[in-house]
Amino acid sequence: MTQGLKNRGRTRKDMDERRQAVEELTGAKLIIIANCPFDPQLAEKNVENMIGTIPVPLGFVGPLLVKGDDADGEFIVPLATTEGALIASVNRGSSVITAAGGATVMVVKDEMTRGPVFRARDIRHAAEAARWIEDNLDAVKAAAEATTRRGRLVRATPYIVGRSLFLRFAFSTGDAMGMNMATIASEAAARLIEESTGVTLVSVSGNMCVDKKPSALNAICGRGKTVLADVTVPRALLEERMHTTPEAVAETCYRKCSIGSALSASIGSNAHVANMLAAVYIATGQDPAQVVEGSMGTTTAEVVDGDLYMSVRLPSIEVGTVGGGTRLPAQAEALSMMGCLGDGKAVKLAEIIGAVVLAGELSTLCAQAAGHLGAAHGRLGR
Amino acid sequence: MTQGLKNRGRTRKDMDERRQAVEELTGAKLIIIANCPFDPQLAEKNVENMIGTIPVPLGFVGPLLVKGDDADGEFIVPLATTEGALIASVNRGSSVITAAGGATVMVVKDEMTRGPVFRARDIRHAAEAARWIEDNLDAVKAAAEATTRRGRLVRATPYIVGRSLFLRFAFSTGDAMGMNMATIASEAAARLIEESTGVTLVSVSGNMCVDKKPSALNAICGRGKTVLADVTVPRALLEERMHTTPEAVAETCYRKCSIGSALSASIGSNAHVANMLAAVYIATGQDPAQVVEGSMGTTTAEVVDGDLYMSVRLPSIEVGTVGGGTRLPAQAEALSMMGCLGDGKAVKLAEIIGAVVLAGELSTLCAQAAGHLGAAHGRLGR
Amino acid sequence: MTQGLKNRGRTRKDMDERRQAVEELTGAKLIIIANCPFDPQLAEKNVENMIGTIPVPLGFVGPLLVKGDDADGEFIVPLATTEGALIASVNRGSSVITAAGGATVMVVKDEMTRGPVFRARDIRHAAEAARWIEDNLDAVKAAAEATTRRGRLVRATPYIVGRSLFLRFAFSTGDAMGMNMATIASEAAARLIEESTGVTLVSVSGNMCVDKKPSALNAICGRGKTVLADVTVPRALLEERMHTTPEAVAETCYRKCSIGSALSASIGSNAHVANMLAAVYIATGQDPAQVVEGSMGTTTAEVVDGDLYMSVRLPSIEVGTVGGGTRLPAQAEALSMMGCLGDGKAVKLAEIIGAVVLAGELSTLCAQAAGHLGAAHGRLGR
Amino acid sequence: MTQGLKNRGRTRKDMDERRQAVEELTGAKLIIIANCPFDPQLAEKNVENMIGTIPVPLGFVGPLLVKGDDADGEFIVPLATTEGALIASVNRGSSVITAAGGATVMVVKDEMTRGPVFRARDIRHAAEAARWIEDNLDAVKAAAEATTRRGRLVRATPYIVGRSLFLRFAFSTGDAMGMNMATIASEAAARLIEESTGVTLVSVSGNMCVDKKPSALNAICGRGKTVLADVTVPRALLEERMHTTPEAVAETCYRKCSIGSALSASIGSNAHVANMLAAVYIATGQDPAQVVEGSMGTTTAEVVDGDLYMSVRLPSIEVGTVGGGTRLPAQAEALSMMGCLGDGKAVKLAEIIGAVVLAGELSTLCAQAAGHLGAAHGRLGR
Repeated sequence: MTQGLKNRGRTRKDMDERRQAVEELTGAKLIIIANCPFDPQLAEKNVENMIGTIPVPLGFVGPLLVKGDDADGEFIVPLATTEGALIASVNRGSSVITAAGGATVMVVKDEMTRGPVFRARDIRHAAEAARWIEDNLDAVKAAAEATTRRGRLVRATPYIVGRSLFLRFAFSTGDAMGMNMATIASEAAARLIEESTGVTLVSVSGNMCVDKKPSALNAICGRGKTVLADVTVPRALLEERMHTTPEAVAETCYRKCSIGSALSASIGSNAHVANMLAAVYIATGQDPAQVVEGSMGTTTAEVVDGDLYMSVRLPSIEVGTVGGGTRLPAQAEALSMMGCLGDGKAVKLAEIIGAVVLAGELSTLCAQAAGHLGAAHGRLGR
Repeated sequence: MTQGLKNRGRTRKDMDERRQAVEELTGAKLIIIANCPFDPQLAEKNVENMIGTIPVPLGFVGPLLVKGDDADGEFIVPLATTEGALIASVNRGSSVITAAGGATVMVVKDEMTRGPVFRARDIRHAAEAARWIEDNLDAVKAAAEATTRRGRLVRATPYIVGRSLFLRFAFSTGDAMGMNMATIASEAAARLIEESTGVTLVSVSGNMCVDKKPSALNAICGRGKTVLADVTVPRALLEERMHTTPEAVAETCYRKCSIGSALSASIGSNAHVANMLAAVYIATGQDPAQVVEGSMGTTTAEVVDGDLYMSVRLPSIEVGTVGGGTRLPAQAEALSMMGCLGDGKAVKLAEIIGAVVLAGELSTLCAQAAGHLGAAHGRLGR
Repeated sequence: MTQGLKNRGRTRKDMDERRQAVEELTGAKLIIIANCPFDPQLAEKNVENMIGTIPVPLGFVGPLLVKGDDADGEFIVPLATTEGALIASVNRGSSVITAAGGATVMVVKDEMTRGPVFRARDIRHAAEAARWIEDNLDAVKAAAEATTRRGRLVRATPYIVGRSLFLRFAFSTGDAMGMNMATIASEAAARLIEESTGVTLVSVSGNMCVDKKPSALNAICGRGKTVLADVTVPRALLEERMHTTPEAVAETCYRKCSIGSALSASIGSNAHVANMLAAVYIATGQDPAQVVEGSMGTTTAEVVDGDLYMSVRLPSIEVGTVGGGTRLPAQAEALSMMGCLGDGKAVKLAEIIGAVVLAGELSTLCAQAAGHLGAAHGRLGR
Repeated sequence: MTQGLKNRGRTRKDMDERRQAVEELTGAKLIIIANCPFDPQLAEKNVENMIGTIPVPLGFVGPLLVKGDDADGEFIVPLATTEGALIASVNRGSSVITAAGGATVMVVKDEMTRGPVFRARDIRHAAEAARWIEDNLDAVKAAAEATTRRGRLVRATPYIVGRSLFLRFAFSTGDAMGMNMATIASEAAARLIEESTGVTLVSVSGNMCVDKKPSALNAICGRGKTVLADVTVPRALLEERMHTTPEAVAETCYRKCSIGSALSASIGSNAHVANMLAAVYIATGQDPAQVVEGSMGTTTAEVVDGDLYMSVRLPSIEVGTVGGGTRLPAQAEALSMMGCLGDGKAVKLAEIIGAVVLAGELSTLCAQAAGHLGAAHGRLGR
């Protein structure tokens, strides 16, 4: 039995043997989990010790009208979730945005970062090493880029704290999310820096990256794609569909997202950005742990000329349309629903994400403004 | 076709019709997504507009030895992920922890919060309302608890910012994650407060909750379950299995998690807590957007008597073993692998999560200390 | 000469001898510094190595109408500053507040904290110690309070991170700022805890206090006095005196304090609270380094019924009217200008501070809204 | 009497008349405050409504050996304070640093920032304006620099949140602290941007500056001078003078500054940086409210080859040696004690500040490690 647990094979037979060993060991019946509607070997770069799959319910919202540089038109957006009422709510927001003429979206920054930390002898040594890097940036770039086909090292920003020298490497990574590429390239660059300056690499990730932890650094400077989205919802449309007013939504957003988020010392100020991101990320094979950085969005709502102006700023949308989980067949299908599978599609995906986040924020703020959040969850909810 | 999109039915036939409408509209082929290895009506409280499922690869780690009050013994822990190398890495940490005698775990706080915001006339009015709530806490509790079978209102903490009166309601919610319950109960309590004090509810969630956003408030005070875990790994074991030393791991943790996380103004300081949480949450039907709060853990590594002492503090583990996504059959099976399905199991689940997070932190810090993070991802990875 | 530097005496002759030694060593002429308009021995508990005084220019604002529990009436508020235009600006705000009927102020919390950190063997040991403290709080209080006449230990909140056990002791400290009292009492309590539980005190201040560092903990929970202040300025008055409108001030406050402060990941959101605090603190013998915590205020501006409603929330006003710098004669005189010298006056002082901070915020936001901040500094300024 | 209050004159006679009016109105006797050991007209750009001075006790520490680019040698550092034990403590640290061969110091960044906020029509308009600024940076610089003799606009970084366009202008400001210069120059640049792009200036300070508020932005990116300092204290010296060990100091720093500061969600992690800054700033005519940004330092302590290595990183030291409070005679004398008065001295001053902060951190961490903080305050203290 433990033998089965230790099977490291990748075939369906290996998978089944491992699962049976788990069943025997734990006494659990893994009947639904046993289903794997694709060849398990397709997941060999995505998982180890595979015993089956967790089927996450997939719904959609849309058509959602998006006005971006790469995403221009109406989209059906796949959302994988187990939170009742979420899709109904986002869909309500989508339909209002579409009726209002669509969401304007744009990607204003696009860089993946990795931040190694080195040990120097002291601040003087660290400063010398930082200067060497600045003076030899071309060599550092060459070392980094020798490891990757798509990646380009854009920038290396040094920070010194005592004997610790941190670098924040920023890469352009094409249509891959790029974390893995950035790690490998950073390691190569770090080795050159070690040899040339005498500092010692302590960790290729020194938490100035910052991957999968909430940080003001990423919230301010961005990581992955920084996405903006906005929409103006005419008063009449808002009142008819959302049963609330621009003034009520603006006040809710102000007291909740501006004052409340500041008081709780949050990074970012929004209603539930993470919900939409988690659902799209799981549907499309993104890394769901990167919802953490993604969650640090800022939502605003203002009354402009009597109508409701709403926007989101999402500083850290880390998504790709090649590599990682996008290689899996269902996830690839979900991307194809938006025409976002493969090369040249990552910005388009980020733009659609900006719009769907805006839809979710709009809907929830309207629901809270109209006073029926609890009611909605009670009726549809978990 | 749009007709199919608008079908709101819950049967497999409805699901298939919707999916076909999506295929027609988008031109995508949704062949793998079409598979739903359970009756879609089982998901009616978990999703709307269902068109199929996203099968997320499921692996496991273990046996992992856990020494907690509720979780005591060896466990096989299910992880759903698409990030190559993650399970291999966590499993390596698990086996070292188990060889070291297991991880000690405990839940030191257990409360779910909801933070409505009210509008008062001014600070004097807000202060009067806060005093009324303090003086009439029994009535407020009664109003809240009338809406729920399991939930108990433990505390109501007021914060005043100008005309905005925030309350942070804390509930004990039994084995449910409890967010929905807390929302409904808070709304009932809020109505009583409105009637009794003249303040006006602006939003049942005023972002002092704080749900799905990173916040210092939750990192300090906790939300859901606050979980501690630790282990002492003997030097010889570490050197043999991890090819590194206690000193190297402690230094890596110090420069990365202590200095680096502070420099990047992160909330929490760890290696990749979010990875383990996302994988367990998706496997077991938790809310993956709550990985955001979960990610704010603190990891420490110290050399004690020549061995490696490691710990994690996880202030916001928001999990349940009843309700929500745990009702879905695959997710229920995953819970049953750990004996964590149903009533009386939520603390046990949180304890196991503490141990598996510790395993992941141990493994990654060791890998970074030993200098082969990039290599591992290059071999197994995405 | 070095001899003179090492003179540790307290008389005017000692002071002069030291200063002459400094002059000889550095070549500087210390002619103005030589003036000490009081007996230097009066400062023996406030300074060492005294060589004279720095005369900080003292101005005032007022009469400022304050409506508080302890401060009720018109006050002249002393401000010591070297920043041109500051007093003129605050005075403008004061006169508008007074014309508007005065500022409502209140102290809603009043506690001084000290946060020792202990080393335990592991999380289990730390948790046992925390439980012992909870179970023996009376004994801990007795140990703490045996060291002080005025201080009372109100609460001891534990936090565990691996082998580190933090306590946040909260004291009521009467009319002293109380930091020193809290330190001594905490040390006594810590000794009892060490003896009774086997944990080891690592530092009487473990930075959960949090003294003189900006922290979300104090911003949320307060340290010293949490002060609220508000005022409604009629539209006509605002337009006449401030040459701006309620709408313009509200928008300035919103974009600057709500959005801008969030985007820069600030703790607190205000215009320049620290300016008023620094000037009052230096004038009245408070600890100017505690302006750090004081600076974390939240300022709001809203249009209510066509008028301007403004408020400040100051979570950490750490002031006293006995002890510390208040013993010095000029500082005591400054306190006496407000009737705030001696016992029973600390809350009154905090209330006046709330009002004068509000005046400064009002004036600066109005100036920025009216577009003439640069002009004001160019004319009066540094 | 109110007449006297309203006297706006600058002569000694005006000052005396005002003070007498205050005495009459308040009943206070302002005998010590009446002393002004310099012609009050000298303070006309530093204060309004002057009624006298607050003499803050001035002591010193040193000789302190500093090894910087501009500050190279032994210095006597003036500290103005009312906190007993502070100077004795910092002096103890200074003498140990000097005995250890001095503190290495360096200024690694030097920029003053101002961050105006504009209102645009929507994100598209804001993005267009940001692009215009990027494309026309020379014209923006010319507009800004036309207002100043010393200042140079180095950079303009845009951030967009909905309809709010923030710019962070960074200036080099020579030996002035430069806030006022930066404000005036920013306003001129902002007017050009308004005219050229159609956005509307809402406030010349949009809190992306960030002046006198704690912010992660400044902690990460720096404002004013970013100063590093370090020292290695031999074990024997530490044991003899500080009665503690490198291990004990490193542990204290780790549990307190690394773990404790992270747990309290502080910005920066140190013992009491603000104390030294406040004392030097008041002594030398700096803006004491800028201690807020200054307080966000990071202190590290490590055992290296058996000795104690200590460092500080101070990201936001905003000081000048011309203009502002440095024009006042006593403050100028204090600067002259360090050879820091006038042109070409601002970096030197910042370097000395780095060393004296390090001295204070060393001393306090040693005292806490040796367990006698409370005792020291009880003997010398307030």
